[in-house]
Amino acid sequence: MNFSSDNAEGWAPQILEALVEANEGPMASYGADPLTDQVGKAFNDLFEKEVAAFLVPTGTAANSLAFATLCPPYGSIYAHEAAHVQIDECGAPEFFTGGAKMMPLAGESGKITADTLAHALGFSMKGIVHHSQPHLISLTQATECGTVYSPAEVRAVADVAHERDLSVHMDGARFANAIAHLKCSPAEMTWKVGVDVMSFGATKNGCMAAEAVIFFDPAKVGAFEYLRKRAGHLFSKHRVLAAQMAAYLKDDLWLELATHANAQAQRLGKGLSDLEGVRLWYPVEGNEVFASFPGDAAARLMSKGVSFHPWIVPGDPAQGQMCRMITSFRTQEADVDQFLKLAKKECVED
Amino acid sequence: MNFSSDNAEGWAPQILEALVEANEGPMASYGADPLTDQVGKAFNDLFEKEVAAFLVPTGTAANSLAFATLCPPYGSIYAHEAAHVQIDECGAPEFFTGGAKMMPLAGESGKITADTLAHALGFSMKGIVHHSQPHLISLTQATECGTVYSPAEVRAVADVAHERDLSVHMDGARFANAIAHLKCSPAEMTWKVGVDVMSFGATKNGCMAAEAVIFFDPAKVGAFEYLRKRAGHLFSKHRVLAAQMAAYLKDDLWLELATHANAQAQRLGKGLSDLEGVRLWYPVEGNEVFASFPGDAAARLMSKGVSFHPWIVPGDPAQGQMCRMITSFRTQEADVDQFLKLAKKECVED
Amino acid sequence: MNFSSDNAEGWAPQILEALVEANEGPMASYGADPLTDQVGKAFNDLFEKEVAAFLVPTGTAANSLAFATLCPPYGSIYAHEAAHVQIDECGAPEFFTGGAKMMPLAGESGKITADTLAHALGFSMKGIVHHSQPHLISLTQATECGTVYSPAEVRAVADVAHERDLSVHMDGARFANAIAHLKCSPAEMTWKVGVDVMSFGATKNGCMAAEAVIFFDPAKVGAFEYLRKRAGHLFSKHRVLAAQMAAYLKDDLWLELATHANAQAQRLGKGLSDLEGVRLWYPVEGNEVFASFPGDAAARLMSKGVSFHPWIVPGDPAQGQMCRMITSFRTQEADVDQFLKLAKKECVED
Amino acid sequence: MNFSSDNAEGWAPQILEALVEANEGPMASYGADPLTDQVGKAFNDLFEKEVAAFLVPTGTAANSLAFATLCPPYGSIYAHEAAHVQIDECGAPEFFTGGAKMMPLAGESGKITADTLAHALGFSMKGIVHHSQPHLISLTQATECGTVYSPAEVRAVADVAHERDLSVHMDGARFANAIAHLKCSPAEMTWKVGVDVMSFGATKNGCMAAEAVIFFDPAKVGAFEYLRKRAGHLFSKHRVLAAQMAAYLKDDLWLELATHANAQAQRLGKGLSDLEGVRLWYPVEGNEVFASFPGDAAARLMSKGVSFHPWIVPGDPAQGQMCRMITSFRTQEADVDQFLKLAKKECVED
Repeated sequence: MNFSSDNAEGWAPQILEALVEANEGPMASYGADPLTDQVGKAFNDLFEKEVAAFLVPTGTAANSLAFATLCPPYGSIYAHEAAHVQIDECGAPEFFTGGAKMMPLAGESGKITADTLAHALGFSMKGIVHHSQPHLISLTQATECGTVYSPAEVRAVADVAHERDLSVHMDGARFANAIAHLKCSPAEMTWKVGVDVMSFGATKNGCMAAEAVIFFDPAKVGAFEYLRKRAGHLFSKHRVLAAQMAAYLKDDLWLELATHANAQAQRLGKGLSDLEGVRLWYPVEGNEVFASFPGDAAARLMSKGVSFHPWIVPGDPAQGQMCRMITSFRTQEADVDQFLKLAKKECVED
Repeated sequence: MNFSSDNAEGWAPQILEALVEANEGPMASYGADPLTDQVGKAFNDLFEKEVAAFLVPTGTAANSLAFATLCPPYGSIYAHEAAHVQIDECGAPEFFTGGAKMMPLAGESGKITADTLAHALGFSMKGIVHHSQPHLISLTQATECGTVYSPAEVRAVADVAHERDLSVHMDGARFANAIAHLKCSPAEMTWKVGVDVMSFGATKNGCMAAEAVIFFDPAKVGAFEYLRKRAGHLFSKHRVLAAQMAAYLKDDLWLELATHANAQAQRLGKGLSDLEGVRLWYPVEGNEVFASFPGDAAARLMSKGVSFHPWIVPGDPAQGQMCRMITSFRTQEADVDQFLKLAKKECVED
Repeated sequence: MNFSSDNAEGWAPQILEALVEANEGPMASYGADPLTDQVGKAFNDLFEKEVAAFLVPTGTAANSLAFATLCPPYGSIYAHEAAHVQIDECGAPEFFTGGAKMMPLAGESGKITADTLAHALGFSMKGIVHHSQPHLISLTQATECGTVYSPAEVRAVADVAHERDLSVHMDGARFANAIAHLKCSPAEMTWKVGVDVMSFGATKNGCMAAEAVIFFDPAKVGAFEYLRKRAGHLFSKHRVLAAQMAAYLKDDLWLELATHANAQAQRLGKGLSDLEGVRLWYPVEGNEVFASFPGDAAARLMSKGVSFHPWIVPGDPAQGQMCRMITSFRTQEADVDQFLKLAKKECVED
Repeated sequence: MNFSSDNAEGWAPQILEALVEANEGPMASYGADPLTDQVGKAFNDLFEKEVAAFLVPTGTAANSLAFATLCPPYGSIYAHEAAHVQIDECGAPEFFTGGAKMMPLAGESGKITADTLAHALGFSMKGIVHHSQPHLISLTQATECGTVYSPAEVRAVADVAHERDLSVHMDGARFANAIAHLKCSPAEMTWKVGVDVMSFGATKNGCMAAEAVIFFDPAKVGAFEYLRKRAGHLFSKHRVLAAQMAAYLKDDLWLELATHANAQAQRLGKGLSDLEGVRLWYPVEGNEVFASFPGDAAARLMSKGVSFHPWIVPGDPAQGQMCRMITSFRTQEADVDQFLKLAKKECVED
């Protein structure tokens, strides 16, 4: 019963098969291969638009390279105070951008509101050399609290950003889970509501190591390819990334896998919410459940072989009391049910 | 009647005289001159301790070089959300450190409390590679709100920091004003209460352009001299900086100038607080007065030739309503009185 | 007939099988998995010594992270003027180190001699703040010219370096080919002759994307893990890298693959050297052959479906005249022979 | 008898007087003062063109900020292997640019020829992401060997650069000495022959600490002002820099001071060339003389109170044998003559 992370799972069989197929014959290196070309077209189809897509192996690389492309060293980047880019990347955004300033914003359930952004930008002193100049806002979709921005919420933030000449980035490490929840199209959640660039995650949802940076306006690509190379993120055997992503996009595998993971999170969340003394801290919308257990129940569950982590979300009132449980493309209903059975027992005993 | 900034004033006559004297004959360049040596000794005397002192022309350079010496690129630096290092240096700390993360902290009247720091460090995940590692806390003395930390307040913050292996930096752009207020010794406000490194400001208080970075433990100097050189802050005619600082330290000129400036701020603050409709936002302790005027009185005062700035302090309830007035070593009592007379008239009329 | 690059090939079947096996069940992420542990032990065995080994996906990442760990921003790094780190990584060393200075050195056949290094270090002004301070020498093994340093040659360079407090890095993107040529042990080519840290390449020689940074003295690891994380090179599903490397090291697969590639290069080199008008520019020692063809023969060969690249090695007399041909773990004898047959025809016709 | 450096001297009386005058009354800080405005106009007059001029305190800052403005992190900058920017700034160009690559070029007498640049750019692989992309060529005028580029020489290099989309920077730390030698106008030595941006030195030639960065095309200014601020080089009391530069430009003081220094170098060079066993290594064109003395004569001269430095110019055949003597705006004829008298004695004795 592993609910510790979607990173703790392996990869979907389709991904492996794609790597078997991609192993035939020589192919041009560094992205000049036909599989990479095919992925580019698949992204155009997915987003119903000509986009510029680039592959990298990790989400930190995807986010930071997007930032470095769109924000100069004297710029600033706004993100939720609990965002992965702010607290879980060991300063990667500052490193890749050459020292841009991260501006953490508060917000309930992991979300930034348009008002919060507008208020913060009110202090930004545009055009005054003493102050880092706002260039980007990064939204995480689904959020670090497992919640999901609606298209209208993104639109509102993007409008504030664009009025002040900021670009809008979406950290979509769990984008598939967000779409599975919203049941809208990828276009409706991105460029149609003002997203300029996104990190399109695939690793957590069934790939080995593959993420894409998508520029919805190819004119914004700028120096991305040079920055990727000098960061060591341009794969020589580029088909390794391309084969994974091609399989991930094919026949909506991405959506199928995320839909499964989300369903397990729903089952888990529903089951936990029925238990005496258990509190869910956020609406369960993606594949994450944040809950507190009565007394020492959490510790007892962990000691009995259920894997999950005590968790802290900066800025949240639950600090120090809650646990994070994550479901994945591989989570079995039986595992969820067994967990719930155990949890029921431990919560009652407390 | 200029209350716009202590940077708007020129320099004290003693500083000019020192530069006349220092112009005699050849001297070794880049700091190997006797004046620089003399300044080193003067700092030892001032701080009653063997210190390592280095001269640079600006406060931003002093702060950022201190940071880069004591914080690696994967480190983080805590500072008040209104601190100069956080909002007024266009990302210099991020630049000099190679991308360390600035962590803004809230706090009343421009001050960080020990509790606030301890709480924030509780989320810092020491030793976990995903997270920027806390290395420094920077306190501004006097603060951006014109208030002054007591030795006990600094001690409390420093204790929290040292327990968690952080170094303590003091941004002393207006250190002289703080000491003039506290009437303690420089040692009692720095290393005796846990400060490890400071930016010792002189420019605002009567020099042309001269600041010192003081390491209270010479073992912490590390690569400072290389970092200063590659940042373009090692003066070839180093006596230019040394002569200024020597004169500034001689016969407690620094304290005399700051005492004068503080007295004018007191006079101004007292006078304003007596006026109907005027509100002082912070205790007047250094050489800064933050006040709001009734109706359009502020605008009318500015239109009649009084120079000061509308001001915003991030995180403060007064946002958008207050004005900042600064006195300096050159401010005349007559100017203060004339301002007060005008202010009385405009406030009544409103 | 693809002799364009060892990056143009896919991966060995053992690597794929390892990824199939590694896909079983949940594993701790970010390197806390048992496969990563196993790889660490395998490297200890391989090098007959307790080493500290870290996995990354690309050679540029491996080299640059090693540099950033051992060279401060005010340091300098010496490398051959034709080295991959100097000319093929788009400034990655400068990026990762925060602006260390690359010092290109000339040298025949892609090699740096002890004398050349000693001469260059004679100008380095140790301890003088005006000058970037030498911290590292990087040797490429096998070199960019397909030649191989003998243990004695490395020892001589390392002695010069260590006498002046520099560390010695080996870029081993084609280390396996070098060992296959030398028939010495990995230990005899590395720490036993003074190498402090190496990039141990596996991608070119049969993996998908996997390289290791090996510190022969674990005390030199320093901040490597933080630097890797903030560069986006810490894989979440770390077993992806570990499984590849475990398979690559198992039963000397690495050596078997490189031995095959080298044999094909020997066959190709030998065959070409027998042709009228063909000149080999460097001894064929690894898996690379550099040759010039008479007249337009090279162009005709390429038009008939043989893939290879016109090539320039900075500092070499052959500039503009030669072609690079690379063999790999997959190159077939039949391909070599067919190429030679074609080449014979085209060279005679010219 | 100090010939150690032009940095070892103080400042011209006109500079001091200007700082006395500039001390009157409050002035807007950070460059919004009337003196800064006046300097801008003076530079327009000097260069017979609308230029964008910015003041900084040191030459390293001027050079590096110019580089950072015109060269991205993935770019490369060509300079003579003996250039100050390459060897005497502790990696400042790499720091300010965020890790651009310095490309050292060989060249006689401290000069880069058009052919050398064209040859080097032939290997630069424009548009290929693996390679740092050439953005700048920096010429030092007068050179580190005390020689002076003719307008035609600069034109030839600039033509090569511009054809390949590089910008041309001139490090004019001793620009005044070059103009005093050439007797051409500043315009004829800069934008009229293709210079895009220059560091206009004043410190070595009689100021305290004042340099200007001049963009001959104001459209190239880009983010300069943000970069200057975040590097700590924007003076708060900006009139300190402006007053110096205004006085330096007024009534051609700069040219008068440099003409004096050059005349002393001529006198010194002529006198030394008449001595048996003394060899001058470069034509004396600016204010520097590079000579070797027979036997131990140099050491004896230094022990008798003549200050100068043994000197090494990378890439030069004289390595290890020569001494550098520098004259300044303050060097007295009597000092030169006394030196020559002593030198005659010591050289004969050897």
